[in-house]
Amino acid sequence: MTATLTERGTHRAQRDSVARLHGELTRNGLVTWTSGNVSERVPGEDLFVIKGSGVPYDGLSWEGITVCDLDGGVVDGVRRPSSDTDAHAYVYRHMPEVHGQVHTHSPYATAWAARAEEIPCVLTAMADEFGGAIPVGPFALIGDDSIGRGVVATLRGSRSPAVLMRNHGVFTVGASARDAVKAAVMTEDVARTVHLSRQLGEPLPISPGHVDALYARYQNVYGQ
Amino acid sequence: MTATLTERGTHRAQRDSVARLHGELTRNGLVTWTSGNVSERVPGEDLFVIKGSGVPYDGLSWEGITVCDLDGGVVDGVRRPSSDTDAHAYVYRHMPEVHGQVHTHSPYATAWAARAEEIPCVLTAMADEFGGAIPVGPFALIGDDSIGRGVVATLRGSRSPAVLMRNHGVFTVGASARDAVKAAVMTEDVARTVHLSRQLGEPLPISPGHVDALYARYQNVYGQ
Amino acid sequence: MTATLTERGTHRAQRDSVARLHGELTRNGLVTWTSGNVSERVPGEDLFVIKGSGVPYDGLSWEGITVCDLDGGVVDGVRRPSSDTDAHAYVYRHMPEVHGQVHTHSPYATAWAARAEEIPCVLTAMADEFGGAIPVGPFALIGDDSIGRGVVATLRGSRSPAVLMRNHGVFTVGASARDAVKAAVMTEDVARTVHLSRQLGEPLPISPGHVDALYARYQNVYGQ
Amino acid sequence: MTATLTERGTHRAQRDSVARLHGELTRNGLVTWTSGNVSERVPGEDLFVIKGSGVPYDGLSWEGITVCDLDGGVVDGVRRPSSDTDAHAYVYRHMPEVHGQVHTHSPYATAWAARAEEIPCVLTAMADEFGGAIPVGPFALIGDDSIGRGVVATLRGSRSPAVLMRNHGVFTVGASARDAVKAAVMTEDVARTVHLSRQLGEPLPISPGHVDALYARYQNVYGQ
Repeated sequence: MTATLTERGTHRAQRDSVARLHGELTRNGLVTWTSGNVSERVPGEDLFVIKGSGVPYDGLSWEGITVCDLDGGVVDGVRRPSSDTDAHAYVYRHMPEVHGQVHTHSPYATAWAARAEEIPCVLTAMADEFGGAIPVGPFALIGDDSIGRGVVATLRGSRSPAVLMRNHGVFTVGASARDAVKAAVMTEDVARTVHLSRQLGEPLPISPGHVDALYARYQNVYGQ
Repeated sequence: MTATLTERGTHRAQRDSVARLHGELTRNGLVTWTSGNVSERVPGEDLFVIKGSGVPYDGLSWEGITVCDLDGGVVDGVRRPSSDTDAHAYVYRHMPEVHGQVHTHSPYATAWAARAEEIPCVLTAMADEFGGAIPVGPFALIGDDSIGRGVVATLRGSRSPAVLMRNHGVFTVGASARDAVKAAVMTEDVARTVHLSRQLGEPLPISPGHVDALYARYQNVYGQ
Repeated sequence: MTATLTERGTHRAQRDSVARLHGELTRNGLVTWTSGNVSERVPGEDLFVIKGSGVPYDGLSWEGITVCDLDGGVVDGVRRPSSDTDAHAYVYRHMPEVHGQVHTHSPYATAWAARAEEIPCVLTAMADEFGGAIPVGPFALIGDDSIGRGVVATLRGSRSPAVLMRNHGVFTVGASARDAVKAAVMTEDVARTVHLSRQLGEPLPISPGHVDALYARYQNVYGQ
Repeated sequence: MTATLTERGTHRAQRDSVARLHGELTRNGLVTWTSGNVSERVPGEDLFVIKGSGVPYDGLSWEGITVCDLDGGVVDGVRRPSSDTDAHAYVYRHMPEVHGQVHTHSPYATAWAARAEEIPCVLTAMADEFGGAIPVGPFALIGDDSIGRGVVATLRGSRSPAVLMRNHGVFTVGASARDAVKAAVMTEDVARTVHLSRQLGEPLPISPGHVDALYARYQNVYGQ
């Protein structure tokens, strides 16, 4: 990340589309001020694009998105990449099926993360999208591989595309940046509904067989 | 639902108006990403129109709405219909007075549904619109008649146009799609206010006689 | 209220300004669907203007506002007036210093009303605007003088321009419709903050002497 | 503050930029009606600019911002300055490194303030921005030096740019008005997340060593 920043304007279409996807984070109330980021693998290259560090959401364009290699080194761009770049890079190196990632401090999900408490699967919408509980990853400092290692280790034991990193926030993965954004939006949605339900009693569990049936249908039949 | 999708452009005005009604779901914070749907009977025909499965709300137009028969089979459209189509069809077959339906996972109402707990009638606005408590329906898997059966069985024992399906969300009915949308909006509104009230104590009941008086006035005198 | 509705277009400027003031109710999240209303005395006449019953907020113009006499009878307009018209009329007859009124079911304030629990004065902003606790009025059926009587009886024992009617919602008064709207906005704001504070413990009281000092300063010095 | 208000139009660019910064208070839900304000030191002069008392946020322009000296006396403008002007002036006199200040009654933060309870540092985002807990200042009446004295005394014992004034609300400081606005936005964000986390259990602490490491990285490495 100490390389000179040089704007060569490569991968402009993808940087543009990833810049626009950040609009879903603000529209859905997942981010505050400049926190949070979306990244996406460049198809067929050992590269990914990611939001610049501390760049405002308002007016974010392709120039706010930087191209990095899979070690987190800057390849093209005028913005220092997100301070979560090493975490994203680690996940891309160790989970080749992942092509998009999102990180947020969305409030309800982060409230569960601050207690290091997984979100139990008590909603059909959770069974659909997450196939079970949303798991908790370890505490990790920001700025090196620690977060990436925690994300990968936690996701490997789960069908969930989302992990709640202890005392920190949400990391989601997907087959594209759009899928990871959807997972981040749904994480906050179910984190809120289960929180509300728990405030006045104990939500009822869904049996593992029903969770499996809902997950299978949603992953294979839902949508166009 | 396995029929070939062919766009013949029939019922375009009604599909257009139902597409626009979905805007009330997003404006009132009842839906997240692509979940939720509105349907409406076609006047004088054994048909109804319903949102396509997984179609985004942003830019939803008449082409995102599919025409189905009362068994849930596709009659016209280019989108596979909602995965809740069989539930809507079942309700239309068994409740001929119902001409509109809405389904959401709106957060406060779904929080009650996850505990399988009815919302008690402690607000004059609830007595007005629901004529009593909002009842809870059974757990049911998605994709066949199960939800429809649960909705019909629950609504038959109540004046409420809304039912909270356990671990799932809200289904509402009305004499038109607009009426069902209103019921969905009011369900979340009262689910939230009663939730807030219960957080700090026990809301006071309204006597059954007062509930009846409020319901009669609202259904017969309110509005233009 | 059974008089023939005839639009003569009188008091158009005031009806226009009251129509626009309703925008503050939606902007501040105080109302849902068509519930809630603003009214204002016509200067120098025994008349007031008020929102029509069940008229949507979207596109509300002067034609959605009806002119009534102080018994609640319609004098000019094409919309049947709010079903709260008799309550407003009663307040105007018995509190001549009141020239504007607002009614909402805003969620946090109505949550207190459902428990018939006054909002204690634990914020300097409450001392400023309300001069103490926000009091609770009795349960009353809708459609005749009952609500008006409860509002007047409760406000007479308080410096507060707002009353929480049990199981129902908020009624506020002011020297103008704008002042009553401000009181309705501030009622929901402090209802929410005190609710949040009470969720995790007991907010600290402000001494009566400090409440008096804050109230005196705000009523006499604040603003332009 | 009793000086005649005369508009000479000095410092127009800075008053314009401070007027626009108030938009972040409304956009982030930190203020209600006319409460709250932003101020900023004039570079190289013993002056600051601050919002007028009770001036609406809608349509706020440079004319709604008044120029004051460091005793709170009006130097230029047509609006009486905020009733918090003496507090801002006191802070500028006693903390020369502070060039911007913000005051709000943002709901979650004010809920902590009403209990006089500091917000514990249980989120990495809090360690980043605040370097520890957000502290509580004393109860103080509005309109003289009392609030300023409480703000300065509390901030001196903390790395936090924000203080929760008991029963009142939030005061933040920064090297510029923009930095103080960011601190106000982040204060409400973490006040909400920690509130939500505490509602269902006890959030886990972050060790002091980790807090220090996060704070050092964020203050020195984050951003461009």
